[in-house]
Amino acid sequence: MAVYNFSAGPALLPEAVLQQAQAEMCDYQGSGLSVMSISHRSELFLDILRRAENDLRELLDVPSHYRILFLQGGASAQFVQIVLNLAGGFRCINAVVSGYWSAQAYRQMRRFGGIPVDVAADGIADYGGRTVPPPENWRIHPKAAFVHYTANETVNGLQYPLLPQPAADSPPFVCDMSSELLSRPINVADFGLIYAGAQKNIGPAGLTVVIIREDLVGRCGDGVPDVWSYRAHLDRQGMYNTPPTYAVYLAGLVLQWLKRQGGIAWARQAAEEKAALLYAAIDGSGGFYRNRIAPQARSLMNVVFDTGDAERDAAFVRSAQRRGLHFLAGHRAVGGLRASLYNAMPCDGVYALIDFMDEFKRRYGR
Amino acid sequence: MAVYNFSAGPALLPEAVLQQAQAEMCDYQGSGLSVMSISHRSELFLDILRRAENDLRELLDVPSHYRILFLQGGASAQFVQIVLNLAGGFRCINAVVSGYWSAQAYRQMRRFGGIPVDVAADGIADYGGRTVPPPENWRIHPKAAFVHYTANETVNGLQYPLLPQPAADSPPFVCDMSSELLSRPINVADFGLIYAGAQKNIGPAGLTVVIIREDLVGRCGDGVPDVWSYRAHLDRQGMYNTPPTYAVYLAGLVLQWLKRQGGIAWARQAAEEKAALLYAAIDGSGGFYRNRIAPQARSLMNVVFDTGDAERDAAFVRSAQRRGLHFLAGHRAVGGLRASLYNAMPCDGVYALIDFMDEFKRRYGR
Repeated sequence: MAVYNFSAGPALLPEAVLQQAQAEMCDYQGSGLSVMSISHRSELFLDILRRAENDLRELLDVPSHYRILFLQGGASAQFVQIVLNLAGGFRCINAVVSGYWSAQAYRQMRRFGGIPVDVAADGIADYGGRTVPPPENWRIHPKAAFVHYTANETVNGLQYPLLPQPAADSPPFVCDMSSELLSRPINVADFGLIYAGAQKNIGPAGLTVVIIREDLVGRCGDGVPDVWSYRAHLDRQGMYNTPPTYAVYLAGLVLQWLKRQGGIAWARQAAEEKAALLYAAIDGSGGFYRNRIAPQARSLMNVVFDTGDAERDAAFVRSAQRRGLHFLAGHRAVGGLRASLYNAMPCDGVYALIDFMDEFKRRYGR
Repeated sequence: MAVYNFSAGPALLPEAVLQQAQAEMCDYQGSGLSVMSISHRSELFLDILRRAENDLRELLDVPSHYRILFLQGGASAQFVQIVLNLAGGFRCINAVVSGYWSAQAYRQMRRFGGIPVDVAADGIADYGGRTVPPPENWRIHPKAAFVHYTANETVNGLQYPLLPQPAADSPPFVCDMSSELLSRPINVADFGLIYAGAQKNIGPAGLTVVIIREDLVGRCGDGVPDVWSYRAHLDRQGMYNTPPTYAVYLAGLVLQWLKRQGGIAWARQAAEEKAALLYAAIDGSGGFYRNRIAPQARSLMNVVFDTGDAERDAAFVRSAQRRGLHFLAGHRAVGGLRASLYNAMPCDGVYALIDFMDEFKRRYGR
């Protein structure tokens, strides 16, 4: 039985990547050493790190005045680090709320940033969380340290169809791209800083990618503990302390795999195809399956749906699991069902899910 | 050719662990899923997490009023987190300096803690870094938030032969055990908090183990960002955010392996035997190889030595590497040579190193 893993994260990794990691586990490229147990300052690892950075630059077309860091702590650590590093000397921060994670970022920034955080737009209050707050209506303070938003809401299944364009005089945009980085073309120059927990499209849990515009590194003051300072890490070529070496290696394998598939253009097309199939199955179920997000803002990464009955949703999850379709429960904050369709999810997984949905509907539908 | 890896960290992992991880990489225990790509809230992973915690408790005989956390960020993050979490409302911290890492911890606590950090003892100033500062001479402030020390100095090759015993009315001892945890029996009740980066005796880089006495969790104030708050992580059963799941799994395999070997008693005996062999080879080299640490404070984990000539040391490292003896260069801060003999280093590795040292001495000795 084929097994498909629809987890929102830590998510599916490409089979080819797992197989390569498996083959190299005890002997990396004839060295007789495991990547897991070599010094982070060895040439073997430095090569892995440089290649991962270069492949990421190439895939996302990262301009040369942007620096890349491979950190620890998850996106949740970035909620605080962006404030510590980028807001010194400013009077406020702007936060856009569109769902669970952007609200979480807002609350953490407000509680621990020591600086007022003004909500520039609130898609939950103003649109019931059914669509993203339109960027043309964001109330941006011209002197804000930055504007924070979340490109894709993993819990709510909501995504900006087009990423907001900053005005010429706008404060820098800082974006949580945890659950969508590498799934569509982006113009990195539209951002001051992009961060992403790796455990969706990039690699295993325990790695955070940060892409920062060089001039913003200068904002990182001396009062920020070195271990949480972008500048301290960049001053030491990403070696302020031991990086999560094996996670960097795996991310590197994923990036190489993505290049072989056709890069971001391939990822975008595949994401559109897979999501279109699944949303069509939901919309064509005669109301048995429901998705509450406005069509233009539906996430291509996390398809959130339900059957209108919590017990039936739970039966769906259990029954799907017996058929090798794993982790289809919605986030505990919202319940229901969720299928995550990151880059590594093959089309066959979506077909298998749709077949199961049909079958489940015949069994449980009126 | 057998290959041995003397890296100080990320260090050698047991061959049996790597092989098990390799075998299970694409299919964990018949689930059809990889541990790397399952939800951290799945029963599969929760079992892994619980078992790792229980095995660590069993191996170190951790009393029930101590809590265990598997965090990210490395020991360097703990330098700041211990202050944020444990020092609120106190007037000072005591730090014991015995070498590179305890000095680093002292500097980070002093720069970023917002609280005076008084040096309780300085083994570098008072003993030239040749021995550990005797605990009976530590100047401990009775009202200090805690007393911080580093059990084993990885860079300097210095280790407390007996771990200091706190007086009944002493502030809690907080100890960096990164490079020695699991290598000897400890009395956990002597500590308020123990932390350790995993990448020496425990697992891969990207995981930090924290063992904290329950009453100290109450010191963690509301002003500490959740992601760096022990209390926030413990309140959510270690799931405040996504843990580094694969690193936890690997640590779990290492703990199971250690139990099969005979636990901490075995580790201690093996460490004593390996270190005795290597120090005897150094001391018996007629001065060709030199170790500057007082015999009673020599580290069993990191044997630091040199030939008295930086170029000859470099030739030693290069030549050893060609013989499959890897990462024997000393830390960049001190130069010279270093052989790390963590739990996973087999005796045969030490014999191979000693054979090579003899041969190198014959070639380069006068």
